Amino acid sequence: MNVTVWNENRHEQKNPVVRDIYPKGIHGAIAGFIEEAGHRVQTATLDQPEHGLTDDVLNDTDVMIWWGHLAHEEVDDAIVEKVKNRVLDGMGLLVLHSGHFSKIFKSLMGTGCDLKWREADEKERLWVIEPSHPITEGIGEYIELEKEEMYGEHFDIPAPDELIFMSWFEGGEVFRSGCTYKRGSGKVFYFRPGHETYPTYHNEDIQTVIKNAVKWAAPAKREKPVYGNAQPLETISPK
Amino acid sequence: MNVTVWNENRHEQKNPVVRDIYPKGIHGAIAGFIEEAGHRVQTATLDQPEHGLTDDVLNDTDVMIWWGHLAHEEVDDAIVEKVKNRVLDGMGLLVLHSGHFSKIFKSLMGTGCDLKWREADEKERLWVIEPSHPITEGIGEYIELEKEEMYGEHFDIPAPDELIFMSWFEGGEVFRSGCTYKRGSGKVFYFRPGHETYPTYHNEDIQTVIKNAVKWAAPAKREKPVYGNAQPLETISPK
Amino acid sequence: MNVTVWNENRHEQKNPVVRDIYPKGIHGAIAGFIEEAGHRVQTATLDQPEHGLTDDVLNDTDVMIWWGHLAHEEVDDAIVEKVKNRVLDGMGLLVLHSGHFSKIFKSLMGTGCDLKWREADEKERLWVIEPSHPITEGIGEYIELEKEEMYGEHFDIPAPDELIFMSWFEGGEVFRSGCTYKRGSGKVFYFRPGHETYPTYHNEDIQTVIKNAVKWAAPAKREKPVYGNAQPLETISPK
Amino acid sequence: MNVTVWNENRHEQKNPVVRDIYPKGIHGAIAGFIEEAGHRVQTATLDQPEHGLTDDVLNDTDVMIWWGHLAHEEVDDAIVEKVKNRVLDGMGLLVLHSGHFSKIFKSLMGTGCDLKWREADEKERLWVIEPSHPITEGIGEYIELEKEEMYGEHFDIPAPDELIFMSWFEGGEVFRSGCTYKRGSGKVFYFRPGHETYPTYHNEDIQTVIKNAVKWAAPAKREKPVYGNAQPLETISPK
Repeated sequence: MNVTVWNENRHEQKNPVVRDIYPKGIHGAIAGFIEEAGHRVQTATLDQPEHGLTDDVLNDTDVMIWWGHLAHEEVDDAIVEKVKNRVLDGMGLLVLHSGHFSKIFKSLMGTGCDLKWREADEKERLWVIEPSHPITEGIGEYIELEKEEMYGEHFDIPAPDELIFMSWFEGGEVFRSGCTYKRGSGKVFYFRPGHETYPTYHNEDIQTVIKNAVKWAAPAKREKPVYGNAQPLETISPK
Repeated sequence: MNVTVWNENRHEQKNPVVRDIYPKGIHGAIAGFIEEAGHRVQTATLDQPEHGLTDDVLNDTDVMIWWGHLAHEEVDDAIVEKVKNRVLDGMGLLVLHSGHFSKIFKSLMGTGCDLKWREADEKERLWVIEPSHPITEGIGEYIELEKEEMYGEHFDIPAPDELIFMSWFEGGEVFRSGCTYKRGSGKVFYFRPGHETYPTYHNEDIQTVIKNAVKWAAPAKREKPVYGNAQPLETISPK
Repeated sequence: MNVTVWNENRHEQKNPVVRDIYPKGIHGAIAGFIEEAGHRVQTATLDQPEHGLTDDVLNDTDVMIWWGHLAHEEVDDAIVEKVKNRVLDGMGLLVLHSGHFSKIFKSLMGTGCDLKWREADEKERLWVIEPSHPITEGIGEYIELEKEEMYGEHFDIPAPDELIFMSWFEGGEVFRSGCTYKRGSGKVFYFRPGHETYPTYHNEDIQTVIKNAVKWAAPAKREKPVYGNAQPLETISPK
Repeated sequence: MNVTVWNENRHEQKNPVVRDIYPKGIHGAIAGFIEEAGHRVQTATLDQPEHGLTDDVLNDTDVMIWWGHLAHEEVDDAIVEKVKNRVLDGMGLLVLHSGHFSKIFKSLMGTGCDLKWREADEKERLWVIEPSHPITEGIGEYIELEKEEMYGEHFDIPAPDELIFMSWFEGGEVFRSGCTYKRGSGKVFYFRPGHETYPTYHNEDIQTVIKNAVKWAAPAKREKPVYGNAQPLETISPK
């Protein structure tokens, strides 16, 4: 499969803590373990022309992974529209962490996508809710992250088609942290963890989930639905 | 409850067939039976200033009903945004028939909302799928409409939270014709029937469904969720 | 509405701590606040003839509330079957706390309904997940219980039709603690809190949720579906 | 994968029409195309000892396919319980056509599973509702069967986790004809077509759906959830 990892790539430029954790950028870290899983991977970032998401790149992408935080508003509306059309046309999309506030996620959800948050080095436990789901393969009863940013309910999303993970946070909150959606001919997975100042994407369980989700989000091999004016069954007499 | 019936009100100006069926406009017909059910009703139409949807009207509306077809693109984006924010804030929204392609519905769904259609005077049967749902109260096993426009699958919507009605059409198609969604603090109901050249909104069963849906879509009486930076439980020691 | 509160009523006989908290039994406490809300309430307990659930009682019940723990196996299969048939026929059912392992709940779910548990006087927070749902009316962002038994995921239930509350527990677990289901013509609500050694059913928020759920679970006023051999449309020629 | 095709195998003994269509039995026909797809297949029938479902067979089965009609009541409750436990433990289950009334399906659904039916050689069209779902791969907009038994709504099942196909019938009915459910660690797919007097399982599209569903229903490779008394996080002080 062809996977494109999109990253805003701004924290990495500004914050040495982030750069130390992710010397090749968050996109580089993710691309690394996706590639090892046998996929063809390319990366794209905000400051490239067309944010790195040219028509050629988009048309060649089976599954896209999206990480953004500081600069959601700088993402061009026309590019967002193109990405959305690709999703509705069958491309898989994985939205990570602060991507909950990205234009592409909000546009696919139809809601505000707001939440509670707190940066306090809290322990997070992501409990598996759907043990039969392929996204949970190889994962134990929960994933534990020693320190993460807290995200808490209410999370202003549509009820997910499938609730895969629910997070517990030390400070008293819970969160729907793994959510699947179908949109048009495409599949969307939101996965909560991944604050830039923690080494979350180096965690093996987190990598397993993302690799599983890439496989799950693969486009279905079928012709797309036809819309518009339709002919009736031949056996129905015209009126 | 305060109900606002919004109608594009263009077919009624152009087409004597439509005007004959709905001399007070589609909005007038709907307002009539909603009012009889004991609600306070106002109407609003496209060609009024701000499409009749001033801040006062919006803030005073518990449930809005939306009918549009020819002129979706003429609805001002800023007004659509206001209506959407009211839905996310708790206002109920009923979207009727060709409103599937309205800006407000597409924006709340996040998908293309396209479908198959055919104007061939076909019989439609709307079968009840959720017999326990309050929207189906007083309805038999199905609603039969002698002649309606056909809408067929694939209907490009997110899987509904609840599938209330499924339509059968003479020419060979089926359609998810009654769908509920929760968005933010608001409830949305899409209801298929109501092509302008048929007397569908004079049908008693159709009126019953719309009246039931108005009650179902009433805003919940509670404070809205709080988003943003959150304090931890006092029992968690600071780090 | 006619509400029947069913309680196993065994802990109250054996354990003075429980009797002190609920001098009229758990059923008496629940019946009290349901009655104050304006419903006609009767109670029924395990050791009564037919567990207090005679045909007259069952046929006269709009919504039933179920609490059991120690003696699920003592509930007669024939009575369970009758209760189930009433639910499928439209009666609402609220299953509380350890009722997750009752025959009636397991039979309606089709799964094992097992879970993790711990008795350690832990704080519980029930977060509102569906702010537009009538069951959450009058409830803030969460309900906090100073001490409760812990129930943790994985909870072996079908994905709920609607996930209304999610619980956080001090010791590191989360739980889907408010779940709605439709079964046949009836509505089912599972609500987690209520371990017998804590005064949970004296908590005002808990009472509000149960009262809201009684209203939500009211039978829909409509004829039941007809099953079996069906006649075709008259317009279809016989073959 | 190891697939077991279970068939009641009674119509084949009694009715020469059925025997002509399925000389190796319905189980033989299904086993044939599943085997060609590269799976190891065994068959089992009602009149074998333990209905052919010994512990060895059950423990060696990844996905089971179930066809029954005349003799649901003859299936031993203890065997049904074993099959159910295997599903909850991860085994996939495909229930076909009149299997809607089998003990195993009713037990996993928790509802009556009744429906409308009519034998009148009617045309059926199964429309694809979820174009992104792997079960629909290789299928066009709909599958058309020239003649089938009609099954009509209301179908007394829980709302499916995913509605994959909806059927249109010539005589005026619709039906939720492809439904997925998760139960415990297992996946269940109900697929409507396959009345014994029509050559439905020789239809290529029908075979494609069943083969897709076998792949989709494969058990997830992970440890099963642990239930029961649980230890708290080490950081929570005992009380």
